[in-house]
Amino acid sequence: MDEIKIIALKESVLEDNDRDAQALRDELKAQGTCLLNLMSSPGSGKTTTLLALNRAFGGRLRWAVMEADIDSAVDARTMQEAGVPTVQLHTGGMCHLDADMTRQGIRALNIPNAELIVLENIGNLVCPAEFDTGAAINMTILSVPEGDDKPAKYPLMYEKCDMLVVNKIDTLPVFDFDKERMEQAARTRNPNIEVYYISAKTGEGVQALADVLVRKVKEWNAK
Amino acid sequence: MDEIKIIALKESVLEDNDRDAQALRDELKAQGTCLLNLMSSPGSGKTTTLLALNRAFGGRLRWAVMEADIDSAVDARTMQEAGVPTVQLHTGGMCHLDADMTRQGIRALNIPNAELIVLENIGNLVCPAEFDTGAAINMTILSVPEGDDKPAKYPLMYEKCDMLVVNKIDTLPVFDFDKERMEQAARTRNPNIEVYYISAKTGEGVQALADVLVRKVKEWNAK
Repeated sequence: MDEIKIIALKESVLEDNDRDAQALRDELKAQGTCLLNLMSSPGSGKTTTLLALNRAFGGRLRWAVMEADIDSAVDARTMQEAGVPTVQLHTGGMCHLDADMTRQGIRALNIPNAELIVLENIGNLVCPAEFDTGAAINMTILSVPEGDDKPAKYPLMYEKCDMLVVNKIDTLPVFDFDKERMEQAARTRNPNIEVYYISAKTGEGVQALADVLVRKVKEWNAK
Repeated sequence: MDEIKIIALKESVLEDNDRDAQALRDELKAQGTCLLNLMSSPGSGKTTTLLALNRAFGGRLRWAVMEADIDSAVDARTMQEAGVPTVQLHTGGMCHLDADMTRQGIRALNIPNAELIVLENIGNLVCPAEFDTGAAINMTILSVPEGDDKPAKYPLMYEKCDMLVVNKIDTLPVFDFDKERMEQAARTRNPNIEVYYISAKTGEGVQALADVLVRKVKEWNAK
């Protein structure tokens, strides 16, 4: 068998988003708002997880959601119906949000006393990881059916995230998903990544995750 | 409940990739090669589907694969071990391939008498749909666990695809996946889209899909 040929393709590089993101993080810190940037593949259960967390927060946090989406408003409607203040961000085809786009959303949301704002980023494991949004916490969801090889194949996402939530664990019996293999790949990229296992559908693990989040948000805002 | 606020964020626009893509399509046509651009979310089973198709082709096609990946070579190795000539394309973080990058891959592959070349695009439902690669056939895979709402939420992908392959149908009993709802959403965007149901794992539906592909490739190359 021949060696596989590797061809390095060119990429284009950008701007000074990093400075802008740090400025936004400082502004939010000053007003006592923790921004959480939630990323994942399409269909891993971002909105369902937020709905489950809302129940598990049990009113302990003033929080709001920004739903970024290519062009539908389905998720925003669902969140709002659950009683969570929500704004829909249409990106007009853009595959990620940067700090400036995030700031536009926060201004439109206009809830200066929110303790937590969640940005539900575009369903995409690639581009969102490349752009600092100004978030205090970066979280990614990996659902069991996507496979345990995702941290190996989309390393930047796992490098950039503080928290990894493995969702749909109720389907573990149906799929070949090796938790140890997955965790090892994730920790190779990011030794500090925190891993949580939940089923947003059945509720398993959700209360524990909600409790951690409440604590992290209160700590961030108190510092 | 208040109306949901919609904020239109700005996007940046690009180049004349369309002309380049048409030129590549013409070149490939002249040499009797059908290029198939395979797109999907991460983890929907692109590589597993190609392996299953390879068995079902049963030697009826001279074909080769280009595996585009952020930085691993796992999929290319798997394909090559199955006896399919394969080249790995590293995009260095880029979230899609355009026609020029595709041409670089085809040159590196260097199999001018291939009847079919499959480009396994980056696992991403957003960006790859925006760029014509020069392919004669655009195909997307949607796996059952991702949910039946994907055509509604990522419309451009379904608009641009000729063939929609629904994979992992062996898991239909475990997930709430409404085939009719999904198909209706897809056909609203693209009345001509062809829908196929398979399980690359169990083999269900794979032979029928392989037969359709063999016919399409031979027809394209004969025209």
